[in-house]
Amino acid sequence: QINGDRLWDALMEMAKIGPGVAGGNNRQTLTDEDGEGRKLFQSWADAAGLTMGVDTMGNMFFRREGTDPDALPVYVGSHLDTQPTGGKYDGVLGVLGALEIVRTLNDLGVKTKHPIVVTNWTNEEGTRFAPAMLASGVFAGVHEEAWAKDRVDAKGKRFGDELARIGWEGDEPVGSRKMKAFFELHIEQGPILEDEDLDIGVVTHGQGLYWLEVRLTGKESHTGSTPMPKRRNAGLGMARVTELVHETAMDFQPSAVGAIGHVEVYPNSRNIIPGRCVFTIDIRSPSKETLEEMKARIEDGIATIAEAMDIEAEMEVVGHFDPVTFDKACVTAVRDAAERLGLSHTDLVSGAGHDACWINRVAPTAMVMCPCVDGLSHNEAEEISKDWATNGANVLMHAVVETAEV
Amino acid sequence: QINGDRLWDALMEMAKIGPGVAGGNNRQTLTDEDGEGRKLFQSWADAAGLTMGVDTMGNMFFRREGTDPDALPVYVGSHLDTQPTGGKYDGVLGVLGALEIVRTLNDLGVKTKHPIVVTNWTNEEGTRFAPAMLASGVFAGVHEEAWAKDRVDAKGKRFGDELARIGWEGDEPVGSRKMKAFFELHIEQGPILEDEDLDIGVVTHGQGLYWLEVRLTGKESHTGSTPMPKRRNAGLGMARVTELVHETAMDFQPSAVGAIGHVEVYPNSRNIIPGRCVFTIDIRSPSKETLEEMKARIEDGIATIAEAMDIEAEMEVVGHFDPVTFDKACVTAVRDAAERLGLSHTDLVSGAGHDACWINRVAPTAMVMCPCVDGLSHNEAEEISKDWATNGANVLMHAVVETAEV
Ligand SMILES: NC(=O)NCCC(=O)O
Ligand SMILES: NC(=O)NCCC(=O)O
Repeated sequence: QINGDRLWDALMEMAKIGPGVAGGNNRQTLTDEDGEGRKLFQSWADAAGLTMGVDTMGNMFFRREGTDPDALPVYVGSHLDTQPTGGKYDGVLGVLGALEIVRTLNDLGVKTKHPIVVTNWTNEEGTRFAPAMLASGVFAGVHEEAWAKDRVDAKGKRFGDELARIGWEGDEPVGSRKMKAFFELHIEQGPILEDEDLDIGVVTHGQGLYWLEVRLTGKESHTGSTPMPKRRNAGLGMARVTELVHETAMDFQPSAVGAIGHVEVYPNSRNIIPGRCVFTIDIRSPSKETLEEMKARIEDGIATIAEAMDIEAEMEVVGHFDPVTFDKACVTAVRDAAERLGLSHTDLVSGAGHDACWINRVAPTAMVMCPCVDGLSHNEAEEISKDWATNGANVLMHAVVETAEV
Repeated sequence: QINGDRLWDALMEMAKIGPGVAGGNNRQTLTDEDGEGRKLFQSWADAAGLTMGVDTMGNMFFRREGTDPDALPVYVGSHLDTQPTGGKYDGVLGVLGALEIVRTLNDLGVKTKHPIVVTNWTNEEGTRFAPAMLASGVFAGVHEEAWAKDRVDAKGKRFGDELARIGWEGDEPVGSRKMKAFFELHIEQGPILEDEDLDIGVVTHGQGLYWLEVRLTGKESHTGSTPMPKRRNAGLGMARVTELVHETAMDFQPSAVGAIGHVEVYPNSRNIIPGRCVFTIDIRSPSKETLEEMKARIEDGIATIAEAMDIEAEMEVVGHFDPVTFDKACVTAVRDAAERLGLSHTDLVSGAGHDACWINRVAPTAMVMCPCVDGLSHNEAEEISKDWATNGANVLMHAVVETAEV
């Protein structure tokens, strides 16, 4: 049994770095606050006797030696970066839960055959630099490192420059590590576990996703003196695409979701008809077929909307992953751990993307989920209980230790 | 006849201050660039022998003496501030056209009985500080000065502080001046004159306007893991209101227009369902009845949309003026001037708001319009020809001189 109080204290301590405006956190990737959070995490890992490695994407690895020096390590972790108005647990629980496992094994003097490596992946959230899960994606060979480093934020700052600026560009080549397995604990970010009063989600699959960045170009003109038939209103076009995305997701419900979260309107003046809008569509489904069908429908729909309004539409995929099926043996290890600990559980499909989804391509992977209040996440009011966190970390520990072999 | 080349040179010279990114201007009100533009204008007015007065709202008045020291002056002018992506003529033509009148009268040694006062009104555009025509509104007694000075821009900067900062807060009480009449020359900002191949618009009326700032509050949550029925998507609400505004304007067409130009989405992250949207609706009509009916329909529509989506809606009027009927005698002076100069003309309703619309409340007022290419304004590509500008300024001069009596 892990120490729930110690885990909770660590969560609260980390939450002091990059506080939000409403009780949550703004510790976006590669900001000064991200750098500070990494330092705190490092100090804890040092104190736990772990050895650090950092790769050239800023991914952090803390190793606890195994009894067999040649055995492949079991990796366990998540991410410390947050949304601009994020919660205290999304990602952080998975990193500090992994650290808590090591602290507990240290306390108990338990040695595993395989080393255990506690991991913090860079830029999971994808808000500042799209796409999400960027550095685990490079690790898994999905993205080129050079391409990833060239991603820019809304102010035009490069990922590579910002990583160097905060001092967390390591020298280890990305993806050079071999894993026996990877486990990630995460809050559910959805309502099922709480609604059904269950302790643990055994994540068997992850939804696939497309992020489609759309640029609509109409014509800036005067809101008062431009006759209605002469307007080429990119803002109205965006409104119609927003409705289209919603309707498309509703048609495939419950195995699909869709929304637009990010919007830029130019020149954004009360008395100028918008001449240009740039926005990102987020569509997801656990079925690859559904996801592709949604994408095709939205592409067609945008073309139709744009043509009818005499505006131009460009579209670019800025994020994509296929639905994921996690490793059978790892999933079984998670389910067995919950069973052994007497915790109620159900199989889940993850609604969100996770670093585990990419790592699953290069190593046997599974995820543990615990409930969060009202299914709320990506909101400063995101909340969990200490018991939920403790149960999640206990299942994580049992799955990891079983895989790492005592 | 005014000197068209000199007028054009002045327009091009002024356009060098606060250049835009695409050939137009960004000389927003109370920015450093606005201050610089005012200084250039002042230097020209000084050279023309005019005496300056500046009121506490930053309105600038340059006086050319009349032969009768007791006669009420005839005022003539417009505004030097621009949209963030504005053209070189919107407002500027009316100020520099007025200056050109004085230069011409000086050249010809013509004296008028009534003094002539060339005027630059502060913050006509209303983009940085809503509402538009703010300082002429205070002059006309429509707004309280203290209230006007408390308007804040998107960065929270106060109008009053910014006026003091650029050094153009005068000491003259606002609205203390009495006028015999006010004339304003402006580009049409609409397509009628060019489409009908006419030189001059005789502005008989101005459209009324409402700017309605709407705040929709839903709930920020994860775009991937929040089930469709659990969403309270403020962005989708905004999209529906955008369509509602468009449909309402279309129903009252051609005597109504409507659009949303200004939009803020929170927290504006690709994978967060928007929890809050703030945006401004712009609706206009030459009929007060239609305008009020549109407003009522939009208010009802917003309430219905919000209720159906379980989101909260607040609405505030941040700009409003009733439709305007300009002074018969002044309008006749403009029409007669066009007639006398052999220029083709038509009566027009102004689609945009103008300082003249407020000044009309405290003095007999009329407007002269000249065509602009493709009716395009509030766009850096706004364009007019030297001939159009010259014709407009000539009509302006004849109307002013007739009213000021030689
Ligand atoms: N877990 C999580 O919120 N990841 C961010 C990427 C996504 O939007 O799914
Ligand atoms: N003329 C002009 O564009 N004025 C700005 C106020 C308005 O939007 O009508």
